[in-house]
Amino acid sequence: MTAPDKVIVVDWGASCLRAYLCLAVGKELTVLDSVSGPGVTKAGNDFEAVLTSVISSWSASYGGLPVLMSGHIGSNLGWHEAPYVFCPVSPVDVALHAVSFMAGIHKVYVIPGVSCADNDQHMDVMRGEEIHVLGWLKLDSRHEQGTHLLCLPGTHTKWVLVKDGVISMVKTAITGELYDLLCHQSVLIQQAAEQMDMCAFQRGAKLTLESENGQFVHGLFSVRTLQVLGRLKPEEASSYLSGLLIGSDIRAALMAQEWRLDELASITLIGSPPLCGLFETTMKMKQLTPGCVDDKQTCLSGFSAIYRAVLKE
Amino acid sequence: MTAPDKVIVVDWGASCLRAYLCLAVGKELTVLDSVSGPGVTKAGNDFEAVLTSVISSWSASYGGLPVLMSGHIGSNLGWHEAPYVFCPVSPVDVALHAVSFMAGIHKVYVIPGVSCADNDQHMDVMRGEEIHVLGWLKLDSRHEQGTHLLCLPGTHTKWVLVKDGVISMVKTAITGELYDLLCHQSVLIQQAAEQMDMCAFQRGAKLTLESENGQFVHGLFSVRTLQVLGRLKPEEASSYLSGLLIGSDIRAALMAQEWRLDELASITLIGSPPLCGLFETTMKMKQLTPGCVDDKQTCLSGFSAIYRAVLKE
Repeated sequence: MTAPDKVIVVDWGASCLRAYLCLAVGKELTVLDSVSGPGVTKAGNDFEAVLTSVISSWSASYGGLPVLMSGHIGSNLGWHEAPYVFCPVSPVDVALHAVSFMAGIHKVYVIPGVSCADNDQHMDVMRGEEIHVLGWLKLDSRHEQGTHLLCLPGTHTKWVLVKDGVISMVKTAITGELYDLLCHQSVLIQQAAEQMDMCAFQRGAKLTLESENGQFVHGLFSVRTLQVLGRLKPEEASSYLSGLLIGSDIRAALMAQEWRLDELASITLIGSPPLCGLFETTMKMKQLTPGCVDDKQTCLSGFSAIYRAVLKE
Repeated sequence: MTAPDKVIVVDWGASCLRAYLCLAVGKELTVLDSVSGPGVTKAGNDFEAVLTSVISSWSASYGGLPVLMSGHIGSNLGWHEAPYVFCPVSPVDVALHAVSFMAGIHKVYVIPGVSCADNDQHMDVMRGEEIHVLGWLKLDSRHEQGTHLLCLPGTHTKWVLVKDGVISMVKTAITGELYDLLCHQSVLIQQAAEQMDMCAFQRGAKLTLESENGQFVHGLFSVRTLQVLGRLKPEEASSYLSGLLIGSDIRAALMAQEWRLDELASITLIGSPPLCGLFETTMKMKQLTPGCVDDKQTCLSGFSAIYRAVLKE
C-alpha cells in the first residue's frame, strides 16, 4: 500500500495525552503541529470522543489520517487492549502486534507494551517506553549490535536491557512516584523546595550509592533526622530526598544480577534533560559516563520506524 | 520526698494522646483508669487546655497529682521542648533529664527522647520509645547484661541496640508510613484488603528478605506487575506489599553494620501483638526466634521505673 504523507501519532499515557500531526519526509517524520488532552485515567472511558475532539481540526483539514498510538491507552484500563508482547522481542516486532480498529474516519493502531515473565522475581512490564527504545535503536546503526542498558527516568524508572537490537529485559523502579508521595505527604518533608540544591542532592545520593547492603528503608529517615538535629536545612530536604531515591535506584541497577556492567557496550539515559541530568550526575559519582538523549527525539524516531513498519508494510 | 500513691502518666504522640491514672503499689504502677485525646499535631497548640480538659475528672477527685509525659509532646513542635539526650545513655538517666513545669495544679514532667549523632550515616532519634526500652529492661534483670536488639514496629520501626543496660544505638525505618502511603495513594494497590493474607505476605517478605543486594526500590513494582500479569490477586496485593516492606526492614536489620547478630543475647519485638506477629513471622523465615512483648506491658513497666526515679528521688 502507499503510505500517506501525513500521520497522527499519539502518546496517550495515564495522566496526559499528547498528539502530533506529522509529515513523512523520506523515512522520517517531522512534527507539523501538536495538541494535548486528558490522560487515560481522566478521559471518562469515552476515548473515541476525546480523541475525535482533540484532533478535530486536523481531521477537518486532512480527512481520515491514520493514528499511531502508544501508552496506557493500550492497557486493560484503556480503549482496546493491546496485550503485552513477551521479551525477548525486537521493538519493531512489538509494533507489528499493533491492535487496529476504526474510530470515525480514522484507522487507529495501538502499539502493545512489553513484558518479561520468566519468574516472579524478573516479571516486569512497560507500555509506551518501547517507542523510545525503538527510536534510540534507529538513531545509530551501532545500537543494533552488542548489549546496551537504557534508563528511562520518570514517574517509574524503566531500565531496559537491549541485546543485538532485541529487548531482553525490563526492570521498573517506582522512584518518581515514591518521591512525589514522600515529598508531599510524609513526615520527611515539610515543604518541597522549588529548585534542586545539587549539593544536598549529591549528599543524599552518596548515602544510598555507597550503602554496603542497600538499606534503603532504613536510610530514608535520615531526611528527618538530619533536619531535627540541625544538619540539613528544611529547604535542602527535598533535594536530599531526591538524591537518596535516585542513588538507590542507580545502586540497584549497578548491582543487578540480570546484567553485568562490564558486558555493556553503553549506558544511555532517555528522558527530559533536567531529570536525565540528575541521573547522569549520580552515575558519574560511580565513574559511569552515560549518554543522554532527549525523549522528544527518541519519540519521533520511534514513531518514524513504526510508521515505516506498520503503514508501509 | 514522699512519693504520692497516685500518678498520671501520658503518652502524647503526634497523632494521639493516651492518659492513665495509676496507683503505685510497692514499686509498680497499676492502671485505675484511662482516657484519650488529640495528638500533638491536632491539639491546636493550647496543650495546657487539652491536658486539663482530658484529665479534669481525675483532678476533681484527687487534686494536683504529678503528670509523667513522653512522646512527641516533648519535641520542638510540642509544649515545652525536652532536648534529646545523646547515646550511649541508660533509659533511667534519660528520665532524669525530664523537663518539669506547672500546668495549673499539676506538676508535669516531660521525658526527653534519645538521639545518636556520631556521623551522618548513624544519626537517628526516637521519642516515646525510650519508655518501652526502659520498661523492657525492668521486666527481667538479665536484660541489664549483654547486648540485646529491640525492634519496635509502628508508623516508624525503631531498632534499638541495648548494651549492658545502656541504649547505644537507634535506627529508624519508615516502614509503616511507607505502607500507608503506598497502600492508599500509589499505583500499586487499587484497594487495601481488610484482612492480612499470610500466604501473600510471606511471598512478599521472601522477595526482599532473599534479595542479594537489597534492591527494594526495584522490588516494589512487582506488586503491580504480578497483578497485571495475573499472578497476584488484587485482594492479595496489600498483604504482599506489607511483606515486601517488613521483609526489607528486617533484611536491613540483619545486614546492619552497627551490630552483629551472633553477638546478640536476644532479639525482642515490642508492640501490638498483631503487628509484632508479622515481624515475628518474617524473622522466623530467617531462622530467628525473637521474643515478643506487648507494648502495654513495657509502657507500664517503663513509667513505673520513671515514677521511682523521678518522684522518689
